[in-house]
Amino acid sequence: EHVPYQPIRYTEQEMVERSRAHYTLMNNRRSVRDFSTEDVPREVIDNIIRVGGTGPSGAHTEPWTYVVVRSAEKKREIREIIEAEEKVNYARRMGEKWVDDLSHIGTTWSKPYLEECPYIIIVFKSAHSKNPDGSKKIHYYHEISSSIGVGFLLGAVQNAGLCSVTTTPMNAGPKLRAVCGRPESEKVLVLLPVGYPRSDATVPDLHRKPLNDIMVVV
Amino acid sequence: EHVPYQPIRYTEQEMVERSRAHYTLMNNRRSVRDFSTEDVPREVIDNIIRVGGTGPSGAHTEPWTYVVVRSAEKKREIREIIEAEEKVNYARRMGEKWVDDLSHIGTTWSKPYLEECPYIIIVFKSAHSKNPDGSKKIHYYHEISSSIGVGFLLGAVQNAGLCSVTTTPMNAGPKLRAVCGRPESEKVLVLLPVGYPRSDATVPDLHRKPLNDIMVVV
Ligand SMILES: Cc1cc2nc3c(=O)[nH]c(=O)nc-3n(C[C@H](O)[C@H](O)[C@H](O)COP(=O)(O)O)c2cc1C
Ligand SMILES: Cc1cc2nc3c(=O)[nH]c(=O)nc-3n(C[C@H](O)[C@H](O)[C@H](O)COP(=O)(O)O)c2cc1C
Repeated sequence: EHVPYQPIRYTEQEMVERSRAHYTLMNNRRSVRDFSTEDVPREVIDNIIRVGGTGPSGAHTEPWTYVVVRSAEKKREIREIIEAEEKVNYARRMGEKWVDDLSHIGTTWSKPYLEECPYIIIVFKSAHSKNPDGSKKIHYYHEISSSIGVGFLLGAVQNAGLCSVTTTPMNAGPKLRAVCGRPESEKVLVLLPVGYPRSDATVPDLHRKPLNDIMVVV
Repeated sequence: EHVPYQPIRYTEQEMVERSRAHYTLMNNRRSVRDFSTEDVPREVIDNIIRVGGTGPSGAHTEPWTYVVVRSAEKKREIREIIEAEEKVNYARRMGEKWVDDLSHIGTTWSKPYLEECPYIIIVFKSAHSKNPDGSKKIHYYHEISSSIGVGFLLGAVQNAGLCSVTTTPMNAGPKLRAVCGRPESEKVLVLLPVGYPRSDATVPDLHRKPLNDIMVVV
Protein backbone atom coordinates (compact mmCIF):
# COMPACT_ATOMS: atom_id res chain seq x y z
CA GLU A 1 0.00 0.00 0.00
CA HIS A 2 3.05 2.29 0.53
CA VAL A 3 5.97 2.45 -1.87
CA PRO A 4 9.49 3.93 -1.54
CA TYR A 5 9.96 7.48 -2.79
CA GLN A 6 13.32 8.93 -3.75
CA PRO A 7 13.16 11.92 -6.10
CA ILE A 8 16.14 13.37 -7.97
CA ARG A 9 18.74 14.84 -5.64
CA TYR A 10 20.73 17.89 -6.80
CA THR A 11 23.90 19.34 -5.25
CA GLU A 12 23.44 22.50 -3.19
CA GLN A 13 25.02 24.53 -5.99
CA GLU A 14 22.61 23.05 -8.54
CA MET A 15 19.66 23.74 -6.25
CA VAL A 16 20.62 27.38 -5.85
CA GLU A 17 21.08 27.80 -9.61
CA ARG A 18 17.85 25.98 -10.46
CA SER A 19 15.90 28.05 -7.94
CA ARG A 20 17.28 31.30 -9.40
CA ALA A 21 16.51 30.28 -12.99
CA HIS A 22 13.01 29.17 -12.01
CA TYR A 23 12.34 32.47 -10.25
CA THR A 24 13.50 34.38 -13.35
CA LEU A 25 11.19 32.29 -15.53
CA MET A 26 8.16 32.72 -13.29
CA ASN A 27 8.80 36.38 -12.55
CA ASN A 28 8.56 37.03 -16.30
CA ARG A 29 4.96 35.84 -16.26
CA ARG A 30 2.34 38.53 -16.79
CA SER A 31 -1.38 38.33 -17.38
CA VAL A 32 -1.90 39.03 -21.07
CA ARG A 33 -5.13 40.33 -22.60
CA ASP A 34 -3.85 40.87 -26.20
CA PHE A 35 -3.60 37.52 -27.97
CA SER A 36 -2.21 36.50 -31.34
CA THR A 37 -4.53 34.29 -33.42
CA GLU A 38 -1.57 32.05 -34.22
CA ASP A 39 -2.11 28.38 -33.47
CA VAL A 40 -0.33 26.39 -30.76
CA PRO A 41 0.70 22.70 -31.03
CA ARG A 42 -2.02 20.56 -29.53
CA GLU A 43 0.47 18.34 -27.68
CA VAL A 44 1.64 21.38 -25.73
CA ILE A 45 -1.94 22.05 -24.58
CA ASP A 46 -2.33 18.38 -23.60
CA ASN A 47 0.89 18.50 -21.57
CA ILE A 48 -0.23 21.70 -19.85
CA ILE A 49 -3.47 19.98 -18.79
CA ARG A 50 -1.50 16.89 -17.69
CA VAL A 51 0.55 19.14 -15.37
CA GLY A 52 -2.67 20.55 -13.89
CA GLY A 53 -3.61 16.95 -13.09
CA THR A 54 -0.43 16.34 -11.06
CA GLY A 55 -1.42 18.73 -8.28
CA PRO A 56 -2.10 17.63 -4.71
CA SER A 57 -5.72 17.40 -3.58
CA GLY A 58 -7.47 16.84 -0.26
CA ALA A 59 -7.63 13.03 0.28
CA HIS A 60 -6.51 12.60 -3.37
CA THR A 61 -9.95 13.45 -4.74
CA GLU A 62 -8.69 15.21 -7.93
CA PRO A 63 -11.75 17.51 -7.99
CA TRP A 64 -10.97 19.19 -11.33
CA THR A 65 -12.17 19.04 -14.94
CA TYR A 66 -10.36 20.98 -17.66
CA VAL A 67 -12.53 21.92 -20.61
CA VAL A 68 -10.41 22.88 -23.60
CA VAL A 69 -12.39 25.13 -25.93
CA ARG A 70 -11.16 24.80 -29.48
CA SER A 71 -14.23 25.52 -31.63
CA ALA A 72 -14.50 29.08 -32.99
CA GLU A 73 -18.26 28.90 -32.55
CA LYS A 74 -17.95 28.02 -28.84
CA LYS A 75 -15.41 30.79 -28.33
CA ARG A 76 -17.84 33.27 -29.88
CA GLU A 77 -20.65 32.06 -27.60
CA ILE A 78 -18.37 32.33 -24.57
CA ARG A 79 -17.36 35.87 -25.51
CA GLU A 80 -21.01 36.89 -25.88
CA ILE A 81 -21.99 35.41 -22.51
CA ILE A 82 -19.10 37.03 -20.67
CA GLU A 83 -19.35 40.45 -22.32
CA ALA A 84 -23.10 40.62 -21.60
CA GLU A 85 -22.48 39.93 -17.89
CA GLU A 86 -19.44 42.20 -17.74
CA LYS A 87 -21.46 45.13 -19.14
CA VAL A 88 -23.81 44.75 -16.17
CA ASN A 89 -20.94 44.22 -13.73
CA TYR A 90 -19.16 47.40 -14.81
CA ALA A 91 -22.28 49.55 -15.32
CA ARG A 92 -24.19 48.76 -12.15
CA ARG A 93 -23.97 45.34 -10.48
CA MET A 94 -20.59 45.76 -8.84
CA GLY A 95 -20.67 49.41 -7.81
CA GLU A 96 -18.19 52.28 -7.92
CA LYS A 97 -15.62 50.87 -5.49
CA TRP A 98 -15.10 47.72 -7.54
CA VAL A 99 -14.78 49.69 -10.79
CA ASP A 100 -12.32 52.00 -9.05
CA ASP A 101 -10.30 49.09 -7.61
CA LEU A 102 -9.88 47.70 -11.13
CA SER A 103 -8.99 50.98 -12.78
CA HIS A 104 -5.20 50.52 -12.44
CA ILE A 105 -5.46 47.26 -14.43
CA GLY A 106 -7.34 49.06 -17.22
CA THR A 107 -9.87 46.29 -17.95
CA THR A 108 -13.36 46.93 -19.38
CA TRP A 109 -16.32 44.73 -20.35
CA SER A 110 -14.82 44.19 -23.81
CA LYS A 111 -13.00 40.83 -24.28
CA PRO A 112 -11.99 40.36 -27.95
CA TYR A 113 -9.17 38.10 -26.78
CA LEU A 114 -11.75 35.38 -26.07
CA GLU A 115 -12.07 34.91 -29.83
CA GLU A 116 -8.48 35.71 -30.77
CA CYS A 117 -6.73 33.10 -28.61
CA PRO A 118 -6.35 29.62 -30.15
CA TYR A 119 -7.51 27.88 -26.95
CA ILE A 120 -9.59 28.67 -23.88
CA ILE A 121 -9.20 26.40 -20.87
CA ILE A 122 -12.14 26.49 -18.44
CA VAL A 123 -11.32 24.95 -15.08
CA PHE A 124 -14.24 23.36 -13.23
CA LYS A 125 -14.19 22.27 -9.59
CA SER A 126 -16.63 19.87 -8.00
CA ALA A 127 -17.55 19.56 -4.32
CA HIS A 128 -18.41 15.89 -4.62
CA SER A 129 -18.63 12.93 -7.01
CA LYS A 130 -19.60 9.26 -6.76
CA ASN A 131 -17.60 6.30 -5.49
CA PRO A 132 -17.54 3.15 -7.66
CA ASP A 133 -20.29 1.72 -5.36
CA GLY A 134 -22.55 4.75 -6.04
CA SER A 135 -22.06 6.35 -2.61
CA LYS A 136 -21.26 10.05 -2.34
CA LYS A 137 -17.59 11.00 -2.44
CA ILE A 138 -16.83 14.28 -0.65
CA HIS A 139 -14.07 16.41 -2.17
CA TYR A 140 -12.44 17.97 0.90
CA TYR A 141 -11.01 21.45 0.25
CA HIS A 142 -11.98 21.26 -3.42
CA GLU A 143 -11.59 25.00 -4.08
CA ILE A 144 -8.08 25.13 -2.60
CA SER A 145 -7.04 21.92 -4.39
CA SER A 146 -8.41 23.05 -7.75
CA SER A 147 -6.78 26.46 -7.39
CA ILE A 148 -3.40 24.89 -6.56
CA GLY A 149 -3.92 22.87 -9.76
CA VAL A 150 -4.47 26.15 -11.63
CA GLY A 151 -1.12 27.30 -10.23
CA PHE A 152 0.52 24.14 -11.60
CA LEU A 153 -1.19 24.65 -14.96
CA LEU A 154 -0.14 28.32 -15.22
CA GLY A 155 3.44 27.28 -14.43
CA ALA A 156 3.25 24.89 -17.39
CA VAL A 157 1.87 27.67 -19.65
CA GLN A 158 4.79 29.89 -18.66
CA ASN A 159 7.34 27.11 -19.09
CA ALA A 160 6.12 26.55 -22.66
CA GLY A 161 6.55 30.22 -23.60
CA LEU A 162 2.80 30.80 -23.81
CA CYS A 163 0.65 33.23 -21.90
CA SER A 164 -2.77 33.51 -20.28
CA VAL A 165 -4.88 35.71 -18.03
CA THR A 166 -6.60 34.22 -15.00
CA THR A 167 -10.23 35.33 -15.12
CA THR A 168 -13.23 34.68 -12.88
CA PRO A 169 -16.22 35.41 -15.14
CA MET A 170 -18.69 36.86 -12.66
CA ASN A 171 -22.31 35.66 -12.90
CA ALA A 172 -21.52 33.74 -16.09
CA GLY A 173 -20.75 30.36 -14.46
CA PRO A 174 -23.98 28.43 -15.18
CA LYS A 175 -24.14 29.62 -18.81
CA LEU A 176 -20.51 28.69 -19.40
CA ARG A 177 -21.16 25.30 -17.84
CA ALA A 178 -24.01 24.76 -20.30
CA VAL A 179 -21.81 25.74 -23.28
CA CYS A 180 -19.26 23.18 -22.09
CA GLY A 181 -21.89 20.51 -21.47
CA ARG A 182 -20.77 19.90 -17.89
CA PRO A 183 -23.03 18.58 -15.10
CA GLU A 184 -24.45 20.78 -12.33
CA SER A 185 -22.05 19.32 -9.78
CA GLU A 186 -19.19 21.14 -11.55
CA LYS A 187 -18.70 24.89 -11.03
CA VAL A 188 -16.53 27.24 -13.10
CA LEU A 189 -13.45 28.17 -11.08
CA VAL A 190 -11.45 30.18 -13.62
CA LEU A 191 -11.32 30.74 -17.37
CA LEU A 192 -7.90 30.86 -19.02
CA PRO A 193 -7.34 31.98 -22.62
CA VAL A 194 -4.05 30.45 -23.81
CA GLY A 195 -1.84 31.42 -26.74
CA TYR A 196 0.96 33.72 -27.82
CA PRO A 197 0.81 37.41 -26.96
CA ARG A 198 0.05 39.69 -29.92
CA SER A 199 3.23 41.38 -31.18
CA ASP A 200 1.93 44.74 -29.88
CA ALA A 201 0.69 43.32 -26.54
CA THR A 202 0.93 45.59 -23.51
CA VAL A 203 0.40 44.93 -19.81
CA PRO A 204 -0.34 47.33 -16.94
CA ASP A 205 2.89 48.63 -15.43
CA LEU A 206 2.40 46.83 -12.09
CA HIS A 207 5.10 45.83 -9.67
CA ARG A 208 5.32 42.93 -7.26
CA LYS A 209 5.94 43.24 -3.54
CA PRO A 210 9.59 42.64 -2.61
CA LEU A 211 10.50 39.49 -0.65
CA ASN A 212 10.57 41.31 2.69
CA ASP A 213 6.94 42.39 2.30
CA ILE A 214 5.67 38.84 1.77
CA MET A 215 8.06 36.73 3.90
CA VAL A 216 8.44 36.62 7.68
CA VAL A 217 11.01 34.30 9.29
CA VAL A 218 10.39 33.03 12.83
CA GLU B 1 0.55 53.13 -17.44
CA HIS B 2 0.79 50.18 -19.90
CA VAL B 3 4.09 48.76 -21.12
CA PRO B 4 4.98 46.40 -24.00
CA TYR B 5 5.21 42.71 -23.16
CA GLN B 6 7.12 40.20 -25.25
CA PRO B 7 8.15 37.04 -23.42
CA ILE B 8 10.66 34.48 -24.71
CA ARG B 9 9.44 32.73 -27.86
CA TYR B 10 10.42 29.10 -28.44
CA THR B 11 10.14 27.07 -31.66
CA GLU B 12 7.27 24.58 -31.78
CA GLN B 13 9.75 21.73 -31.35
CA GLU B 14 11.24 23.39 -28.27
CA MET B 15 7.79 23.98 -26.83
CA VAL B 16 6.81 20.34 -27.23
CA GLU B 17 10.07 19.19 -25.63
CA ARG B 18 9.85 21.69 -22.78
CA SER B 19 6.26 20.74 -22.07
CA ARG B 20 7.15 17.03 -21.93
CA ALA B 21 10.11 17.59 -19.63
CA HIS B 22 8.04 19.83 -17.37
CA TYR B 23 5.30 17.22 -17.14
CA THR B 24 7.87 14.56 -16.21
CA LEU B 25 9.27 16.85 -13.50
CA MET B 26 5.88 17.70 -12.03
CA ASN B 27 4.49 14.18 -12.31
CA ASN B 28 7.35 13.00 -10.09
CA ARG B 29 6.04 15.18 -7.26
CA ARG B 30 4.52 13.32 -4.34
CA SER B 31 3.37 14.52 -0.94
CA VAL B 32 6.05 13.37 1.50
CA ARG B 33 5.50 12.82 5.23
CA ASP B 34 8.95 11.35 6.09
CA PHE B 35 11.54 14.11 6.21
CA SER B 36 15.31 14.10 6.60
CA THR B 37 16.64 16.50 9.24
CA GLU B 38 19.31 17.64 6.77
CA ASP B 39 19.50 21.37 6.23
CA VAL B 40 18.60 23.18 3.00
CA PRO B 41 20.37 26.30 1.66
CA ARG B 42 18.50 29.37 2.82
CA GLU B 43 18.71 31.04 -0.61
CA VAL B 44 16.71 28.17 -2.08
CA ILE B 45 13.94 28.77 0.47
CA ASP B 46 14.00 32.50 -0.33
CA ASN B 47 13.70 31.80 -4.06
CA ILE B 48 10.82 29.39 -3.46
CA ILE B 49 8.97 32.13 -1.56
CA ARG B 50 9.83 34.65 -4.30
CA VAL B 51 8.15 32.35 -6.83
CA GLY B 52 5.03 32.21 -4.63
CA GLY B 53 4.98 36.00 -4.86
CA THR B 54 4.89 36.00 -8.68
CA GLY B 55 1.39 34.50 -8.87
CA PRO B 56 -1.60 36.35 -10.32
CA SER B 57 -4.13 37.82 -7.87
CA GLY B 58 -7.55 39.42 -8.20
CA ALA B 59 -6.97 43.15 -8.97
CA HIS B 60 -3.25 42.59 -8.13
CA THR B 61 -3.91 42.56 -4.38
CA GLU B 62 -1.18 40.00 -3.52
CA PRO B 63 -3.18 38.71 -0.52
CA TRP B 64 -0.49 36.33 0.82
CA THR B 65 2.05 36.22 3.64
CA TYR B 66 4.60 33.40 3.83
CA VAL B 67 5.83 32.65 7.34
CA VAL B 68 9.03 30.62 7.23
CA VAL B 69 9.44 28.71 10.48
CA ARG B 70 13.10 28.04 11.21
CA SER B 71 13.31 27.89 15.01
CA ALA B 72 13.29 24.39 16.53
CA GLU B 73 11.28 25.73 19.45
CA LYS B 74 8.54 27.09 17.15
CA LYS B 75 8.46 23.84 15.18
CA ARG B 76 7.94 21.96 18.46
CA GLU B 77 5.09 24.30 19.46
CA ILE B 78 3.49 23.87 16.03
CA ARG B 79 3.72 20.10 16.26
CA GLU B 80 2.08 20.15 19.72
CA ILE B 81 -0.77 22.39 18.56
CA ILE B 82 -1.49 20.33 15.45
CA GLU B 83 -1.21 16.91 17.09
CA ALA B 84 -3.57 17.96 19.91
CA GLU B 85 -6.20 19.06 17.36
CA GLU B 86 -5.63 16.05 15.10
CA LYS B 87 -6.21 13.66 18.04
CA VAL B 88 -9.67 15.20 18.43
CA ASN B 89 -10.26 15.28 14.66
CA TYR B 90 -9.47 11.57 14.25
CA ALA B 91 -11.09 10.38 17.51
CA ARG B 92 -14.40 12.23 17.36
CA ARG B 93 -14.70 15.67 15.74
CA MET B 94 -14.69 14.55 12.12
CA GLY B 95 -16.64 11.29 12.30
CA GLU B 96 -16.25 7.87 10.75
CA LYS B 97 -16.74 8.87 7.11
CA TRP B 98 -13.84 11.33 7.16
CA VAL B 99 -11.53 8.84 8.90
CA ASP B 100 -12.56 6.24 6.33
CA ASP B 101 -12.02 8.62 3.40
CA LEU B 102 -8.46 9.22 4.61
CA SER B 103 -7.63 5.57 5.25
CA HIS B 104 -6.07 4.97 1.81
CA ILE B 105 -3.56 7.77 2.52
CA GLY B 106 -2.59 6.16 5.82
CA THR B 107 -2.30 9.39 7.85
CA THR B 108 -2.86 9.57 11.63
CA TRP B 109 -2.74 12.34 14.25
CA SER B 110 1.01 11.82 14.66
CA LYS B 111 3.21 14.36 12.80
CA PRO B 112 6.89 13.89 13.76
CA TYR B 113 7.84 15.41 10.40
CA LEU B 114 6.86 18.83 11.75
CA GLU B 115 10.03 18.74 13.86
CA GLU B 116 12.22 16.75 11.46
CA CYS B 117 11.93 19.07 8.44
CA PRO B 118 14.42 21.98 8.32
CA TYR B 119 11.71 24.50 7.35
CA ILE B 120 7.95 24.89 7.68
CA ILE B 121 6.25 27.42 5.42
CA ILE B 122 2.85 28.59 6.67
CA VAL B 123 0.83 30.38 3.99
CA PHE B 124 -1.58 33.05 5.25
CA LYS B 125 -4.32 34.68 3.15
CA SER B 126 -6.06 37.93 4.00
CA ALA B 127 -9.48 39.08 2.85
CA HIS B 128 -8.54 42.76 3.10
CA SER B 129 -5.78 45.19 3.98
CA LYS B 130 -5.35 48.98 4.08
CA ASN B 131 -4.68 51.39 1.25
CA PRO B 132 -1.91 53.99 1.78
CA ASP B 133 -4.67 56.52 2.69
CA GLY B 134 -5.99 54.21 5.43
CA SER B 135 -9.14 53.15 3.56
CA LYS B 136 -10.07 49.47 3.35
CA LYS B 137 -8.61 47.49 0.47
CA ILE B 138 -10.71 44.47 -0.54
CA HIS B 139 -8.81 41.40 -1.73
CA TYR B 140 -11.11 39.99 -4.40
CA TYR B 141 -10.92 36.17 -4.67
CA HIS B 142 -8.22 36.03 -2.01
CA GLU B 143 -8.58 32.28 -1.38
CA ILE B 144 -8.27 31.39 -5.06
CA SER B 145 -5.36 33.80 -5.58
CA SER B 146 -3.47 32.57 -2.52
CA SER B 147 -4.04 28.94 -3.49
CA ILE B 148 -2.75 29.57 -7.02
CA GLY B 149 0.32 31.09 -5.30
CA VAL B 150 0.68 27.85 -3.32
CA GLY B 151 0.69 26.02 -6.67
CA PHE B 152 3.49 28.29 -7.89
CA LEU B 153 5.42 27.74 -4.65
CA LEU B 154 5.04 23.93 -4.78
CA GLY B 155 6.29 24.00 -8.37
CA ALA B 156 9.40 25.81 -7.10
CA VAL B 157 9.87 23.22 -4.32
CA GLN B 158 9.71 20.43 -6.90
CA ASN B 159 12.03 22.24 -9.31
CA ALA B 160 14.65 22.52 -6.55
CA GLY B 161 14.56 18.78 -5.82
CA LEU B 162 12.89 19.28 -2.45
CA CYS B 163 9.59 17.95 -1.18
CA SER B 164 6.59 18.95 0.91
CA VAL B 165 3.11 17.87 1.91
CA THR B 166 0.21 20.30 1.55
CA THR B 167 -1.67 20.29 4.85
CA THR B 168 -4.71 22.16 6.13
CA PRO B 169 -4.37 21.96 9.92
CA MET B 170 -8.01 21.75 10.99
CA ASN B 171 -9.09 23.89 13.95
CA ALA B 172 -5.49 24.92 14.60
CA GLY B 173 -5.52 28.15 12.54
CA PRO B 174 -5.83 30.78 15.31
CA LYS B 175 -3.18 29.11 17.50
CA LEU B 176 -0.76 28.81 14.58
CA ARG B 177 -1.40 32.45 13.77
CA ALA B 178 -0.45 33.38 17.33
CA VAL B 179 2.78 31.32 17.17
CA CYS B 180 3.67 33.18 13.97
CA GLY B 181 2.73 36.57 15.43
CA ARG B 182 0.39 37.42 12.53
CA PRO B 183 -2.59 39.80 12.79
CA GLU B 184 -6.21 38.61 12.96
CA SER B 185 -6.84 39.71 9.38
CA GLU B 186 -4.60 36.86 8.19
CA LYS B 187 -5.89 33.27 8.14
CA VAL B 188 -3.87 30.08 7.77
CA LEU B 189 -4.45 28.64 4.29
CA VAL B 190 -1.97 25.75 4.24
CA LEU B 191 1.08 24.55 6.14
CA LEU B 192 3.98 23.15 4.14
CA PRO B 193 6.95 21.33 5.67
CA VAL B 194 9.87 21.62 3.26
CA GLY B 195 13.06 19.57 3.08
CA TYR B 196 14.58 16.39 1.65
CA PRO B 197 12.71 13.10 1.97
CA ARG B 198 14.21 10.68 4.49
CA SER B 199 16.24 7.94 2.76
CA ASP B 200 13.55 5.39 3.75
CA ALA B 201 10.58 7.66 2.86
CA THR B 202 7.49 5.95 1.49
CA VAL B 203 4.31 7.34 -0.08
CA PRO B 204 0.87 5.79 -0.52
CA ASP B 205 0.67 3.90 -3.80
CA LEU B 206 -1.83 6.28 -5.38
CA HIS B 207 -2.37 6.84 -9.08
CA ARG B 208 -3.45 9.93 -10.98
CA LYS B 209 -6.40 10.07 -13.35
CA PRO B 210 -5.35 9.74 -17.00
CA LEU B 211 -5.68 12.76 -19.32
CA ASN B 212 -8.99 11.59 -20.77
CA ASP B 213 -10.62 11.58 -17.33
CA ILE B 214 -9.72 15.20 -16.58
CA MET B 215 -9.83 16.85 -20.03
CA VAL B 216 -12.80 17.48 -22.32
CA VAL B 217 -12.32 19.20 -25.68
CA VAL B 218 -15.22 21.18 -27.20
C1 LIG C 1 -6.02 21.34 0.19
C2 LIG C 1 -5.25 20.11 0.59
C3 LIG C 1 -5.28 19.67 1.91
C4 LIG C 1 -4.54 18.57 2.31
N1 LIG C 1 -4.53 18.24 3.63
C5 LIG C 1 -3.68 17.27 4.04
C6 LIG C 1 -3.50 17.04 5.45
O1 LIG C 1 -4.08 17.75 6.29
N2 LIG C 1 -2.64 16.05 5.84
C7 LIG C 1 -1.96 15.29 4.92
O2 LIG C 1 -1.19 14.42 5.32
N3 LIG C 1 -2.10 15.49 3.57
C8 LIG C 1 -2.93 16.47 3.13
N4 LIG C 1 -3.03 16.74 1.78
C9 LIG C 1 -2.23 15.97 0.80
C10 LIG C 1 -3.09 14.97 0.01
O3 LIG C 1 -3.45 13.86 0.81
C11 LIG C 1 -2.31 14.53 -1.25
O4 LIG C 1 -2.07 15.64 -2.07
C12 LIG C 1 -3.07 13.47 -2.03
O5 LIG C 1 -3.17 12.30 -1.26
C13 LIG C 1 -2.41 13.16 -3.38
O6 LIG C 1 -1.10 12.72 -3.18
P1 LIG C 1 0.13 13.44 -3.92
O7 LIG C 1 0.17 14.86 -3.41
O8 LIG C 1 1.34 12.64 -3.52
O9 LIG C 1 -0.13 13.41 -5.40
C14 LIG C 1 -3.77 17.84 1.36
C15 LIG C 1 -3.76 18.28 0.03
C16 LIG C 1 -4.47 19.40 -0.36
C17 LIG C 1 -4.39 19.88 -1.76
C1 LIG D 1 -8.59 34.82 -8.91
C2 LIG D 1 -8.21 35.82 -9.97
C3 LIG D 1 -9.21 36.46 -10.68
C4 LIG D 1 -8.90 37.36 -11.71
N1 LIG D 1 -9.91 37.90 -12.44
C5 LIG D 1 -9.59 38.64 -13.53
C6 LIG D 1 -10.61 39.03 -14.44
O1 LIG D 1 -11.80 38.67 -14.26
N2 LIG D 1 -10.28 39.79 -15.53
C7 LIG D 1 -8.96 40.14 -15.77
O2 LIG D 1 -8.70 40.81 -16.75
N3 LIG D 1 -7.96 39.77 -14.92
C8 LIG D 1 -8.25 39.01 -13.83
N4 LIG D 1 -7.23 38.55 -13.01
C9 LIG D 1 -5.83 38.88 -13.32
C10 LIG D 1 -5.25 39.92 -12.35
O3 LIG D 1 -5.76 41.21 -12.64
C11 LIG D 1 -3.71 39.92 -12.44
O4 LIG D 1 -3.23 38.66 -12.02
C12 LIG D 1 -3.08 41.01 -11.58
O5 LIG D 1 -3.42 42.27 -12.07
C13 LIG D 1 -1.56 40.88 -11.51
O6 LIG D 1 -1.00 40.93 -12.79
P1 LIG D 1 -0.04 39.78 -13.32
O7 LIG D 1 -0.87 38.51 -13.37
O8 LIG D 1 0.42 40.25 -14.66
O9 LIG D 1 1.11 39.62 -12.32
C14 LIG D 1 -7.53 37.67 -11.97
C15 LIG D 1 -6.53 37.03 -11.23
C16 LIG D 1 -6.86 36.09 -10.26
C17 LIG D 1 -5.78 35.38 -9.52
